[in-house]
Amino acid sequence: MKTTDMLAAAKEASLAVASYTTEQKNAALEAMAAALEAHTPEILAANKEDMGAAKGRISDVMLDRLMINEDRIAGMAKGIREVVDLPDPVGSVIEETEPQPGLKIQKVSVPMGVIAIIYESRPNVTADAAALTFKSGNACVLRGGKEAARTAHAIMDALKEGVKTAGLDPSVINLVDDTSRESATELMTSPEYVDLLIPRGGAGLIKACVDNATVPCIETGTGICHVYVDEQADLQKAVNIIINAKTSRPSVCNAEEVLVVNKAIAGEFLPMVKEALVDKRAAAGQIPVELRLDETAAGIIEGTPAGEKDFDTEFLDYILAVKCVDSVDEAIAHIRAHSTGHSDAIVTEDEAAANKFTALVDSAAVYVNASTRFTDGGEFGLGCEIGISTQKLHARGPMGLREMNTYKYIIKGNGHIR
Amino acid sequence: MKTTDMLAAAKEASLAVASYTTEQKNAALEAMAAALEAHTPEILAANKEDMGAAKGRISDVMLDRLMINEDRIAGMAKGIREVVDLPDPVGSVIEETEPQPGLKIQKVSVPMGVIAIIYESRPNVTADAAALTFKSGNACVLRGGKEAARTAHAIMDALKEGVKTAGLDPSVINLVDDTSRESATELMTSPEYVDLLIPRGGAGLIKACVDNATVPCIETGTGICHVYVDEQADLQKAVNIIINAKTSRPSVCNAEEVLVVNKAIAGEFLPMVKEALVDKRAAAGQIPVELRLDETAAGIIEGTPAGEKDFDTEFLDYILAVKCVDSVDEAIAHIRAHSTGHSDAIVTEDEAAANKFTALVDSAAVYVNASTRFTDGGEFGLGCEIGISTQKLHARGPMGLREMNTYKYIIKGNGHIR
Repeated sequence: MKTTDMLAAAKEASLAVASYTTEQKNAALEAMAAALEAHTPEILAANKEDMGAAKGRISDVMLDRLMINEDRIAGMAKGIREVVDLPDPVGSVIEETEPQPGLKIQKVSVPMGVIAIIYESRPNVTADAAALTFKSGNACVLRGGKEAARTAHAIMDALKEGVKTAGLDPSVINLVDDTSRESATELMTSPEYVDLLIPRGGAGLIKACVDNATVPCIETGTGICHVYVDEQADLQKAVNIIINAKTSRPSVCNAEEVLVVNKAIAGEFLPMVKEALVDKRAAAGQIPVELRLDETAAGIIEGTPAGEKDFDTEFLDYILAVKCVDSVDEAIAHIRAHSTGHSDAIVTEDEAAANKFTALVDSAAVYVNASTRFTDGGEFGLGCEIGISTQKLHARGPMGLREMNTYKYIIKGNGHIR
Repeated sequence: MKTTDMLAAAKEASLAVASYTTEQKNAALEAMAAALEAHTPEILAANKEDMGAAKGRISDVMLDRLMINEDRIAGMAKGIREVVDLPDPVGSVIEETEPQPGLKIQKVSVPMGVIAIIYESRPNVTADAAALTFKSGNACVLRGGKEAARTAHAIMDALKEGVKTAGLDPSVINLVDDTSRESATELMTSPEYVDLLIPRGGAGLIKACVDNATVPCIETGTGICHVYVDEQADLQKAVNIIINAKTSRPSVCNAEEVLVVNKAIAGEFLPMVKEALVDKRAAAGQIPVELRLDETAAGIIEGTPAGEKDFDTEFLDYILAVKCVDSVDEAIAHIRAHSTGHSDAIVTEDEAAANKFTALVDSAAVYVNASTRFTDGGEFGLGCEIGISTQKLHARGPMGLREMNTYKYIIKGNGHIR
């Protein structure tokens, strides 16, 4: 189908999905999960083709993201069933006033309409995004990466079959056929059809969307997250937080990329960091973290000299840039200048320093004595998330079902005039 | 000052204004109002120059918008003092959870940072916008129209003096010196400095911002508002609502532009409309409303034949387009296709029709048996408004102080890791 026709059909279908009851949507989600499981052989076959075509053309990391197996399909089905249990935001009354007798103003949560999502090669995004937009009462138009096209279509076919089985309109969930640049541009520039665009992927994709979109667009995901260890830090807590923030899952956006250390404690603390992230890991047969050190840090421990770019890079790897500062103010200034506005932390026992840090660091999630890894829809009580917003309009931080709704005012009178 | 330098200074100053207490901000607002009053002669002199330069070059309506006098300055000062009484949104805790013992997550209302506002020739916007952005903890960079530049600068000088008198940093409120197209483009495309752009003005300005902005932008204001009179309407209520919606203030965005009438009652109802909007007004020496009628309506009452454009025009004048439909469904379809998403109303005693209408009409404010003129920050309990959002991201409908804030998550632990 041509992308324009699909967008027009989705806009039309958005009326239907907005009016489905929670029970209807939950029954369909259950059917979508069951259909995914039932079509495991077709999805695996499609993925085999995608993998075959991609081999040698994309990196091993990318290949691993592209690959699915029975476990991963079961994981997608499980993810959809988790969405069943999430509260339905549609129709909830946010506020209610009666400014004049008999004139009632309700502020009501309603779906956006059509949500477009542009993503890269992870096939599970197809299932996640379809389930979350559907449960939040929106039609969706998804556009995945070219490498994963066959897999994504096999997944979408199964999901549509599930929606149909449940007696609902399958055109509420859609995957564009065209994976050329033109289809992405069309999603970004069709305000008559697209109510919200959410890019999910690398920094390049997100920048392209933010720069070119004439539809409302939410910037997501890039995380250059900092942990600042203050003069008044409990150094053992700090080491534990850094081990968690850097090494528990380095490939995700809430992982730490930069360690900022107060010079007053750097002499005692940096050797503790090196022992925990490099020496102990090497001794245990784990990948040691590569430390990229500024001049001061390099005078205290061994490591790679940091280049200027190292403080503006989302490594997503076992690499940590280390910068030493004179004060909490210098730490805040550095973070304001280099953070992507995702998650940043201070480790300190000094309440004044903590309060200054949380007030002045301009990021979606600001931590005191806790790991940046907590920035997650599940941890924040939103359930699954469609992405993590690093901008300030509409939603900031993890976006769940509620953040995929807007509101409208419904005003009921009895002939009231102003 | 160069616009870039002003933006950089505003970004810097946004840290200060975000940390001012409510008391500090209220004292400064009081001083701003007093300074406006004290500088009435300078402001009037500047306005005289603007008026002289503009005469013969812009329309009389535009000249009237540009003109100020002592009353209008007093009105601006009163407007600023009203902002003193509005609740301060900064720092309010929206939600609070403790997912693990000792790990507290707070969702806190915080300022956007720098709000840019591009507007046209109404000088009062300078005072309103500065007061509202300031009270909501934001720095602002305003850009008014060229015709009003001297007046706007005289107003801004007085406001800055007020901020300074109160002992605060005057660079939190700013008016760009350059009124060329380049300065508008710079505000639209400086995401490193501008956290939110709000255009206030005609459809052309708003479209230019939405199309060209790479900064987060909220579409405001254009109102092609409909009143649909259903088969089951109380016709007298309907006439009263239409008189109010069309004629109480035709130049504002929440005024009715299109009347949609069910054919079943058109024969009885349209003559009532003509009597109220045309004949009675003419007899009373008031401007009669020009009715632009579709074919069916033209078969019932006298008026101008409607052209296709008349159903897509914000007249802002004593003009009303009239369309007849067969059903509430056809009315909804017409409104979905032609409304700007501002305010639309149904007049009916049929609850099922009313519920269908409020569910399916995709506008910021949807009315049952009440005038569209209620769409207003004051009426909705938000206090003053910075504009009325006709898009769905972040804020919809009237935007008050609360809508000029975003939120951040502040997470406090005691060494918590995930």
